[in-house]
Amino acid sequence: MELLKQTIEAISPQDRTWREQAKARLDQLIMPHWAMGRLMDLAVDLAGITRSMSPALTKRTVVTMAGDHGVATEGVSAYPQEVTPQMVMGFVAEMATINAMAKVTGTDVIVVDMGVAAELPPAADGKVVGKKIAPGTANIAQGPAMSPQQAVAAVEAGIEVGNSLADSVDVFGTGDMGIANTTPSTAIVAVLTGESVAEVTGRGTGIDDEQLIHKIAVVEKALIVNQPDPTDALDVLAKVGGFEIGGIAGLILAAAAQRKPVVVDGFISTAGALIAHALAPACSDYMVAAHRSVEQGHRAMHTRLGKEPLLDLNMRLGEGTGSALAMTLIQAAGRLLTDVATFEEAHVSEAD
Amino acid sequence: MELLKQTIEAISPQDRTWREQAKARLDQLIMPHWAMGRLMDLAVDLAGITRSMSPALTKRTVVTMAGDHGVATEGVSAYPQEVTPQMVMGFVAEMATINAMAKVTGTDVIVVDMGVAAELPPAADGKVVGKKIAPGTANIAQGPAMSPQQAVAAVEAGIEVGNSLADSVDVFGTGDMGIANTTPSTAIVAVLTGESVAEVTGRGTGIDDEQLIHKIAVVEKALIVNQPDPTDALDVLAKVGGFEIGGIAGLILAAAAQRKPVVVDGFISTAGALIAHALAPACSDYMVAAHRSVEQGHRAMHTRLGKEPLLDLNMRLGEGTGSALAMTLIQAAGRLLTDVATFEEAHVSEAD
Repeated sequence: MELLKQTIEAISPQDRTWREQAKARLDQLIMPHWAMGRLMDLAVDLAGITRSMSPALTKRTVVTMAGDHGVATEGVSAYPQEVTPQMVMGFVAEMATINAMAKVTGTDVIVVDMGVAAELPPAADGKVVGKKIAPGTANIAQGPAMSPQQAVAAVEAGIEVGNSLADSVDVFGTGDMGIANTTPSTAIVAVLTGESVAEVTGRGTGIDDEQLIHKIAVVEKALIVNQPDPTDALDVLAKVGGFEIGGIAGLILAAAAQRKPVVVDGFISTAGALIAHALAPACSDYMVAAHRSVEQGHRAMHTRLGKEPLLDLNMRLGEGTGSALAMTLIQAAGRLLTDVATFEEAHVSEAD
Repeated sequence: MELLKQTIEAISPQDRTWREQAKARLDQLIMPHWAMGRLMDLAVDLAGITRSMSPALTKRTVVTMAGDHGVATEGVSAYPQEVTPQMVMGFVAEMATINAMAKVTGTDVIVVDMGVAAELPPAADGKVVGKKIAPGTANIAQGPAMSPQQAVAAVEAGIEVGNSLADSVDVFGTGDMGIANTTPSTAIVAVLTGESVAEVTGRGTGIDDEQLIHKIAVVEKALIVNQPDPTDALDVLAKVGGFEIGGIAGLILAAAAQRKPVVVDGFISTAGALIAHALAPACSDYMVAAHRSVEQGHRAMHTRLGKEPLLDLNMRLGEGTGSALAMTLIQAAGRLLTDVATFEEAHVSEAD
């Protein structure tokens, strides 16, 4: 609990002076006023986050957290649980979509086993960061996902991963892998935003209408059985969360404490972001929402966090794929601060 | 006229067989079905465009076409006309936003003088492709922008630029620079889509309410004075267009004839795309819409072309900035075809 406390205490909002300095320069760039729109808003954020007019953005890493979920036995996913370790090995072999997207944007990928329900094959040795809290959560439709101690351990494991990367990462990105993990994420968004379960439940990996009705019933049952306390994020995580979701929350807290931007990927990552935000509201100042997922509860999450995602491409994969793609837009925003001349510098005439 | 004819004749639609082959592979990738959404649609397009399952996408170039507009004397822009050559020199000095965005995405920038109303300083020598049709168009509120011969020459100059780059470019991007050029672009979209002028007129570089009403009146006057024929794209270009808009249309035709993707930037570039589409409807198969501009007529243009833009970031700069940013998403789409394993290849279990 000490590491979590210290980390939360180290988080302060974006710096207003650096934001104003950035805005003052961007107001003068050789273009119609604020003509690069949301990239300019992002540039102001980057200055406020990093306390710099030339934010360090060259070392980019997506951390993909993997975990399994006892609720998979309720038939809430289109895929069997064995896919979680198989996909982890796909990341290790660099055959998965996150690897491809990261290569395009010059982003490193680090895979963390937060709680995969299988022993990973030897090929994973040295390639997967081992932070396994337990081999999968318990079934949230029957009782809590994990103990209160495990919830703290999951968040602190995420912080440890973030802290171990402090020297080698300028921009963090989140990612997830875990069969059935839209189900706990749906429970989290329902509890923390107050939206109805039916409103925020989506089709995850691609279930049909009948399965969707069943999934809604499972999430509703999980909330009735567990009665998570919406004012206590660790209680919510323990009762209806997941190990990788806790790890993602911890990574976000670590990034905020290090005053670095953290790109939040899709539905599961944003469930982690909701937990992090509930633990330390100022940490949302350090989040960049990568994209809007097809998963319908994602919009309610972004509203809660006050974030507008950068991309909207009908994606719903997770893995950190949205984070990887958004890295280019973050770099681009940084370049507005450093590479573009002002009217005065370039001897260009201003508006009449 | 011969070059234009030959180029149009060389354009055929995307290849259906390559599209189907791409779709068949993408259906099998280790992810929930079509979970990368619009990037997968784009990957199918890239296969259909290039007739390849591993489309060449490494050599990326934005061609920024510059030209001036006689209608600037009507007070339709917030900026004086001298800004056009000043910004061209900003591109040459690599101090402008397009240079910064292109660097982020590994894109080359080529600047073309299609009709700047000034002699460029010696520093432009060898750095700006000289295709000046005339030093600015005539005032469309008084008469035609250019002669029919000049309209053909502008489009053919764009084709020549595209053809001269055939060996060094895999993906083309369009860009523009020209004070007052949202005014002819607005006239073009009104004529070619049938929307009312008021519906498609926006604030360009940032005019106020009173200036907006004036701009609408100027565009309406240009249409009344010139009576452009909506069934004749060259007549529309000659009567209410611009030299850089013609050049952009030509570049798009050249890309389509070369069977290469061409990323279409903002409002002015898409006006060029409307001209190209009217000349050779199949060329829209080769267009990728980079982003949705703040400029309100942009939506009607995309509807006309059947395109959904990739990005929507409140941008309204032009220069090719949206094209440069979209290059990363095009690369990413290509990597889905080449870098991601199928369920069978990766030994991952499929959906139940």
